Amino acid sequence: MRAPWTPLGTTNVYRRGKLTLREDTWRAPDGVEHVYPVLAAGVTVGVLPFVDDDRVLLIGQHRHLLREVSWELPGGGALPGEDPLAAAQRELREEGGYRAGELTYLTRFWPANAYLDELAYCYVGRGLTVDPLPADDDEFIERRIVPITEAVRMALAGDITEGISKMTILHWAAAARR
Amino acid sequence: MRAPWTPLGTTNVYRRGKLTLREDTWRAPDGVEHVYPVLAAGVTVGVLPFVDDDRVLLIGQHRHLLREVSWELPGGGALPGEDPLAAAQRELREEGGYRAGELTYLTRFWPANAYLDELAYCYVGRGLTVDPLPADDDEFIERRIVPITEAVRMALAGDITEGISKMTILHWAAAARR
Repeated sequence: MRAPWTPLGTTNVYRRGKLTLREDTWRAPDGVEHVYPVLAAGVTVGVLPFVDDDRVLLIGQHRHLLREVSWELPGGGALPGEDPLAAAQRELREEGGYRAGELTYLTRFWPANAYLDELAYCYVGRGLTVDPLPADDDEFIERRIVPITEAVRMALAGDITEGISKMTILHWAAAARR
Repeated sequence: MRAPWTPLGTTNVYRRGKLTLREDTWRAPDGVEHVYPVLAAGVTVGVLPFVDDDRVLLIGQHRHLLREVSWELPGGGALPGEDPLAAAQRELREEGGYRAGELTYLTRFWPANAYLDELAYCYVGRGLTVDPLPADDDEFIERRIVPITEAVRMALAGDITEGISKMTILHWAAAARR
């Protein structure tokens, strides 16, 4: 039987706000040690919010890496100790201005499992009522309501490029059509 | 008209291998300055390789963040200056052991556009012939051939959790069913 991967230790090398960079050291099955940098971001959530049977809410915000406004689903990072479902409700209220009467778990995934310690949870929201919370101080948010067919078209055509939003919409579309 | 977001500068704070951590400073529309940490990884690729009309190749490798074997599509980071399409062919040969006679661009997206400077390109490979390249020295790879319907089921059920693989498969499924 081949030797397993063995964790040898971890060292924090940087921190700002909720983001930490650490170095994890592992011994590979052939005995060689490898050091892997890991950016730790924790739990992130996204919500596909149906305002009625056929239409969903998208939000637009400036993304500094893209240097333009990105159209996305409401979502963001969970607070320390916050349940993913509670984070989804809070982000929907902060960014979308709505509370969901029903939040259904759709899927979860690792956006970049080689160097980003972040697990993304995707939800579908229904039964929306207006119930806003103040947004983060660096968020300047636009909102659009579009047919779900248009959101799927945008995800397939590359008009929605943010990973969690695109995954949530395409998972919903692929599951709905099975 | 609202003032735009203005980039004020960038500073590298860490580097190991192909990964760099930098701090980007921006002035928000309200005049307040924000510093955003960014992990720069560059271009990453994934390939959905059809070995015949109905079956695709998956690879399994240990992922230190998950502490277990993750079933994924062949893929990985592009080399400096390497074209995404060339990177897809190279990763398919290194991890999958095949060359594709035809590589079709499917989509691209930002896996984590708030703090990871990484753009992921997704391809479909067909016309495969055996033509392996040596893998990276920390990769110990298993291979499985499954029906595409099983790969879609695995992506929907959460048996495939790596973002680029899951996105590529679900994008293919959602587009195929329109």
